[in-house]
Amino acid sequence: MSAVKNKRSLGAQPLISPQPSLLICSYDAAGKPNVMAAAWAGICCSKPLSVAVGIRPERWSHDAILARKAFTVCHAPVSLMAEADFVGMASGRNHDKFAEAGLAAVRAENVDAPYVAQCPVILECELIRTVELGAHTVMIGEIVDVKADEDCLDPTGKFPDFTKVDALIYDAGAQSYHRLGERVGKAFSVGRALLKTEE
Amino acid sequence: MSAVKNKRSLGAQPLISPQPSLLICSYDAAGKPNVMAAAWAGICCSKPLSVAVGIRPERWSHDAILARKAFTVCHAPVSLMAEADFVGMASGRNHDKFAEAGLAAVRAENVDAPYVAQCPVILECELIRTVELGAHTVMIGEIVDVKADEDCLDPTGKFPDFTKVDALIYDAGAQSYHRLGERVGKAFSVGRALLKTEE
Repeated sequence: MSAVKNKRSLGAQPLISPQPSLLICSYDAAGKPNVMAAAWAGICCSKPLSVAVGIRPERWSHDAILARKAFTVCHAPVSLMAEADFVGMASGRNHDKFAEAGLAAVRAENVDAPYVAQCPVILECELIRTVELGAHTVMIGEIVDVKADEDCLDPTGKFPDFTKVDALIYDAGAQSYHRLGERVGKAFSVGRALLKTEE
Repeated sequence: MSAVKNKRSLGAQPLISPQPSLLICSYDAAGKPNVMAAAWAGICCSKPLSVAVGIRPERWSHDAILARKAFTVCHAPVSLMAEADFVGMASGRNHDKFAEAGLAAVRAENVDAPYVAQCPVILECELIRTVELGAHTVMIGEIVDVKADEDCLDPTGKFPDFTKVDALIYDAGAQSYHRLGERVGKAFSVGRALLKTEE
């Protein structure tokens, strides 16, 4: 168990970290595919199975997602670090980010949005709710399917192995990118000893 | 750049991964501190600076957070892996999870909630909105302060260094725990070459 140490107050900061580097894709009104970077996303409900993504109204993707009521969430691998970083800095208003980054836009099978073909894991999402909070609109998307590269799958074939994915991880503290590190334990297992002492 | 490969449809799965292993703390109506595990959390807005956490109505923490309108988000380090895993399996309804896991509950400075003293980074949050989605209520909390252990800070002292934190990372695919891996690049920097070719 860790020792209790002195804590310093750092003020309000958006520090849920580390997070996967995610690319959010949509078609705009003219049908042009757009891609933005988002580390601010998380699963928020199991039924409907959905993800919440905070997007500023000024972002080109904001109105595109509202119009098409769909987006995809694409997990960037380490090999796309520069491309993921670029799409987080440029705007779809004056950039064709897919073309400039050399990314291929593929129409999703189940929703009216493209995905990044080079991303190994993608979530196809239908917009089911928006929550206007202030500087960001929280876009809540129901996950209707997950697609993953065949060569990134776990031996069971049922889910992606995120070590094979070589997922790009963003640290919101130092604003740096990392790899996923060593496996240290199995969930719903390593805590059983504590559970059993009381059952 | 990664090659384009064949993708397999895996059905709808909650696969935003990897994520930090987070402990959500609250006081219940009787004042007992409770702690639950949540990997389903993400920053959702910059102003008010807020975090969204999906919590099932059946969870003991759900009504506690609604009653006190406050919670903390505590980043678990690898050294608390078993404890974090345990609090994700036991319920506050019939467990004093703080005591059973040997965790110390400290009253947060700014909100009516406790935090796990042994966690190196904690966010103090005031509940500002709830969104009932179905199986989960999305609790939106404004981050009013972040506190971090002195010995985990970056040399500037302004934010935690998540490599020093030794953050416990949860992979929702294989349901396993990992460390943060090697640093591979600086954000808002490694993509500049692509940006400049078009500016």
